[in-house]
Amino acid sequence: MIDQAYLDSIIKEYKRYTIEGQVADYIPELKKMNRGDLGISVYDGEKVFSSGNWDKKFTIQSVSKPLVLMLALIDQGEDKIFELVGKEPTGDPFNSMIRLETYTFKKPLNPMINAGAITISSLIKGKDNEEKINRILGFIRLLADNEDIHVNKDVFLSEKETGNRNRSLGYFLKDIRCIEGSVEEVLDLYFMQCSIEVNTLDLAKMSLIIANDGFNKQTGEQLIPKKYAKIAKTFMLTCGMYDESGQFAIDVGIPSKSGVGGGIMSSAPNQYGIGVYGPALNLKGNSVAGMRMLERISKDFDMSIFL
Amino acid sequence: MIDQAYLDSIIKEYKRYTIEGQVADYIPELKKMNRGDLGISVYDGEKVFSSGNWDKKFTIQSVSKPLVLMLALIDQGEDKIFELVGKEPTGDPFNSMIRLETYTFKKPLNPMINAGAITISSLIKGKDNEEKINRILGFIRLLADNEDIHVNKDVFLSEKETGNRNRSLGYFLKDIRCIEGSVEEVLDLYFMQCSIEVNTLDLAKMSLIIANDGFNKQTGEQLIPKKYAKIAKTFMLTCGMYDESGQFAIDVGIPSKSGVGGGIMSSAPNQYGIGVYGPALNLKGNSVAGMRMLERISKDFDMSIFL
Amino acid sequence: MIDQAYLDSIIKEYKRYTIEGQVADYIPELKKMNRGDLGISVYDGEKVFSSGNWDKKFTIQSVSKPLVLMLALIDQGEDKIFELVGKEPTGDPFNSMIRLETYTFKKPLNPMINAGAITISSLIKGKDNEEKINRILGFIRLLADNEDIHVNKDVFLSEKETGNRNRSLGYFLKDIRCIEGSVEEVLDLYFMQCSIEVNTLDLAKMSLIIANDGFNKQTGEQLIPKKYAKIAKTFMLTCGMYDESGQFAIDVGIPSKSGVGGGIMSSAPNQYGIGVYGPALNLKGNSVAGMRMLERISKDFDMSIFL
Amino acid sequence: MIDQAYLDSIIKEYKRYTIEGQVADYIPELKKMNRGDLGISVYDGEKVFSSGNWDKKFTIQSVSKPLVLMLALIDQGEDKIFELVGKEPTGDPFNSMIRLETYTFKKPLNPMINAGAITISSLIKGKDNEEKINRILGFIRLLADNEDIHVNKDVFLSEKETGNRNRSLGYFLKDIRCIEGSVEEVLDLYFMQCSIEVNTLDLAKMSLIIANDGFNKQTGEQLIPKKYAKIAKTFMLTCGMYDESGQFAIDVGIPSKSGVGGGIMSSAPNQYGIGVYGPALNLKGNSVAGMRMLERISKDFDMSIFL
Repeated sequence: MIDQAYLDSIIKEYKRYTIEGQVADYIPELKKMNRGDLGISVYDGEKVFSSGNWDKKFTIQSVSKPLVLMLALIDQGEDKIFELVGKEPTGDPFNSMIRLETYTFKKPLNPMINAGAITISSLIKGKDNEEKINRILGFIRLLADNEDIHVNKDVFLSEKETGNRNRSLGYFLKDIRCIEGSVEEVLDLYFMQCSIEVNTLDLAKMSLIIANDGFNKQTGEQLIPKKYAKIAKTFMLTCGMYDESGQFAIDVGIPSKSGVGGGIMSSAPNQYGIGVYGPALNLKGNSVAGMRMLERISKDFDMSIFL
Repeated sequence: MIDQAYLDSIIKEYKRYTIEGQVADYIPELKKMNRGDLGISVYDGEKVFSSGNWDKKFTIQSVSKPLVLMLALIDQGEDKIFELVGKEPTGDPFNSMIRLETYTFKKPLNPMINAGAITISSLIKGKDNEEKINRILGFIRLLADNEDIHVNKDVFLSEKETGNRNRSLGYFLKDIRCIEGSVEEVLDLYFMQCSIEVNTLDLAKMSLIIANDGFNKQTGEQLIPKKYAKIAKTFMLTCGMYDESGQFAIDVGIPSKSGVGGGIMSSAPNQYGIGVYGPALNLKGNSVAGMRMLERISKDFDMSIFL
Repeated sequence: MIDQAYLDSIIKEYKRYTIEGQVADYIPELKKMNRGDLGISVYDGEKVFSSGNWDKKFTIQSVSKPLVLMLALIDQGEDKIFELVGKEPTGDPFNSMIRLETYTFKKPLNPMINAGAITISSLIKGKDNEEKINRILGFIRLLADNEDIHVNKDVFLSEKETGNRNRSLGYFLKDIRCIEGSVEEVLDLYFMQCSIEVNTLDLAKMSLIIANDGFNKQTGEQLIPKKYAKIAKTFMLTCGMYDESGQFAIDVGIPSKSGVGGGIMSSAPNQYGIGVYGPALNLKGNSVAGMRMLERISKDFDMSIFL
Repeated sequence: MIDQAYLDSIIKEYKRYTIEGQVADYIPELKKMNRGDLGISVYDGEKVFSSGNWDKKFTIQSVSKPLVLMLALIDQGEDKIFELVGKEPTGDPFNSMIRLETYTFKKPLNPMINAGAITISSLIKGKDNEEKINRILGFIRLLADNEDIHVNKDVFLSEKETGNRNRSLGYFLKDIRCIEGSVEEVLDLYFMQCSIEVNTLDLAKMSLIIANDGFNKQTGEQLIPKKYAKIAKTFMLTCGMYDESGQFAIDVGIPSKSGVGGGIMSSAPNQYGIGVYGPALNLKGNSVAGMRMLERISKDFDMSIFL
């Protein structure tokens, strides 16, 4: 059983791996993070254990992708969503020599890459961005059972100012008719959702809801339709850890989503929700110490879905 | 509970979907298959139920990929294998606009695409191809508990004669030093492994061993090291159904591998081994009726690993 | 010798090919063009002959690319320009299997593709877009010896409104630091330069200056440094006709630049400046009747530089 | 006027640039070349001047591409040749973001890349490779007016042994039906044609025939149909110097073809045939000192076709 002593010992043991990574530096705000931080929360629906820098706030970044995807599924339904975004971790036909030979960029491959996530953001309902971000925040607060979750304005402005690659994606998506309306507005919403601040406890609570197929066992409420929670989990497994997803599926085997803010949200089906924070990233953009810690926990408690 | 009546009714119901697909036609031998065929076997380690054209022999084709991967892992160990072949279903960095921007073909992306599978075949131990194919056949017979499994020589010769795309891959792999020795010999072995004939019962028995992490509950033997069975299952989930793997993971959620001979081998962890045969394929190369049948069974018996 | 009778007969003969093409339809303004139009002007520095719809105004579109390139070379010098934009019609290493294997998009390949041309526009000197477009207009009026050349505001606004693919390129160029300052401002300038209206006589006069290495024989003035005129001619030959440039180099062999407004500007070195207008385009974006007419003239008067 | 003293001084001056390059090392035979070598021959149809290591034999390598192309054109006619190989130095549609977005490898882009040249070799007439290589040798001896031109067997065997990338291309071409018959035989012919030994005088004589549109002014014979010589010249200009062709067209402007044996064959239309030998190559595969020497000569004697 996971308990406080176990988590404390794990944090102590894995903290030294933080020196192997670097904090994200593409925006000034993220550079301010403390490279040596490491925190974790584990929640089984009854008890929660946390250790290390678990109560430090960090921006959610790409961890928002499966969350906003579920809200968009609720808003628009499966058909509409997957008409505009694909489901494939790989677009390779079985005999492709190299990948773009036959690839034609008609829609983003899946909702976990930026192009897909921007398209998904554009599908959130609301009369304006204020209503839309409030709906996203409301959904996240509900899942995390925490009203004190907000957008970090400085990070948002920093993302907005420097986000030219995403802006390029946005106008490309507009050109191929994946997004409608103002590209700048869609990007603003996307940058806002990435700038939401959470801590590991928030991630642990949200991931348990996902692990339990959208059901909150404490309150007896179905917060997310079962099918959509399953879809989120599937994408987390097949493409949740950038281009280390395959490696992570073998080594850890828990549906997880990472972000360059240092967070990882892991949903061990019907068992645990886990939130990790470790801003020292490897070259793929994943928390170095966080990944290793999850590998250890998965092995110690047989959490892989491939077991 | 899955029983004979259930399988019979499923076969009857789904047989009509066979008209939506086409049998593979890239070699004359495969064109001879009967488009209307549909068969299934389900095995839980105690009882086995089969229905439809379950006892018809067909060539294993790409279903051999995870099997030969496990034998290569036994032969060479993890480090050697993954030095030469990657683990990622997608090679996309999170912000890639289109896929080959930064991709450099130094090694195949994973063992389920042809380039990876050819590399894996080259790593099977044996003093010559005869010994190597006998070792592969021995491994498959052991897992399927069936000595009557052989290479179909006509299919092999047909594959060999027409396999210029694979030959092109082979020489490319030679050039980038992923394979050593004679390319033609490696391809011969690869074409032979693809031409092994099985039926759905064979697939069901093999997939149960994989589902049970390499363990044969009847005999108490660990036929495959646990870790390697897990690796096979992971690749089956993330890239086992060609470029429908993501869709299939959401709809079915059972680690599975398909082949253009019409076979699908599905391993529902700790539950069932399932073998399917339906040579009418969709454009992605997967059995049309087979996939739909698996979706139904997965839902009826809660087999998704994301549940 | 080219004379009035020759041009009249050519126009008459080739007019029927206009039905093989379509006018550009990506913006409403261009759709208004008359598909059956065909005009030509030929100038040898002493005499000018024109025939057909030679005095109809059309937007210059991509024909502006070599012109603005020469102005940018005058403004910034060769080193600065080619630090930001490449010179290669093809980026393929000699043994590439397919093209993006090793390609990394650090700068546009050449100034004749949109990405390169947008970068070039960003390098025109001026305190604001008004000054910049006036400098471009001034340069074009000087070369065409015609003060009555202006931007078509409706076309400009239409380009601006629908130019999301170019906008995507613009933000990509900003991200990789090929362009500085406001992307929207650079795009505005680019859209304005594309919307300049000319007729075939203007094109003929400009192309003779280029043909004569920047020298105006009538006035004795060197309007463009010789080296820069040569650079423009080289790009016109190697990549002036979109992805029909290779075919056109063989069939016609005159350095030329086409635009989707239907114009083609052809510089037969030390002989003739030719302007063509024929808005019915083929699928590559080149004037159908215009190309054929140039092929005929090139053969009749031995104008190919490969002769 | 080019004379002996001029060439001697040029060789002396440019010899020092040989230290900036490296001899080709992909096969042992080529590694034996002397990095410091530099030679040149210039022929105007009446007088020939040679200097430096002009009489050293080296393998023709890619310089054979335009020569074999002309023979194939004579054998098969234009329609057949360009049905199987393209004419474009660049396959980019004008608004491509990056190059393979829409590219589908149905045929090689042009005859100067390996894929195209292998396809071209497969179209040479002859009942077997012996007859075919003898026809190629005969054609080259005729153009060079030198019977003492042969295949270097050691280089041929070395190319054949290590040519896996070309072998991969060959089987790919077979798969897409660009080449018929035995891939190994086609590759043997291709490797033989690359292994033909020449010196700079041979190159100078051949290039003058091409410069003069296939006509031998001394004998009054039309050795190559005019149109085919023009086609060769056009490809030499647009893609003759690997991916430095654009740069070279601007700096030198003489249709030229280089090879990794260190040779460059340059055809200044209606003026000179130039042969250069300098085995120290830059990273693109072109002779460092050779290119610089040609740039100097082109400027000193106004040889650019864009003048």
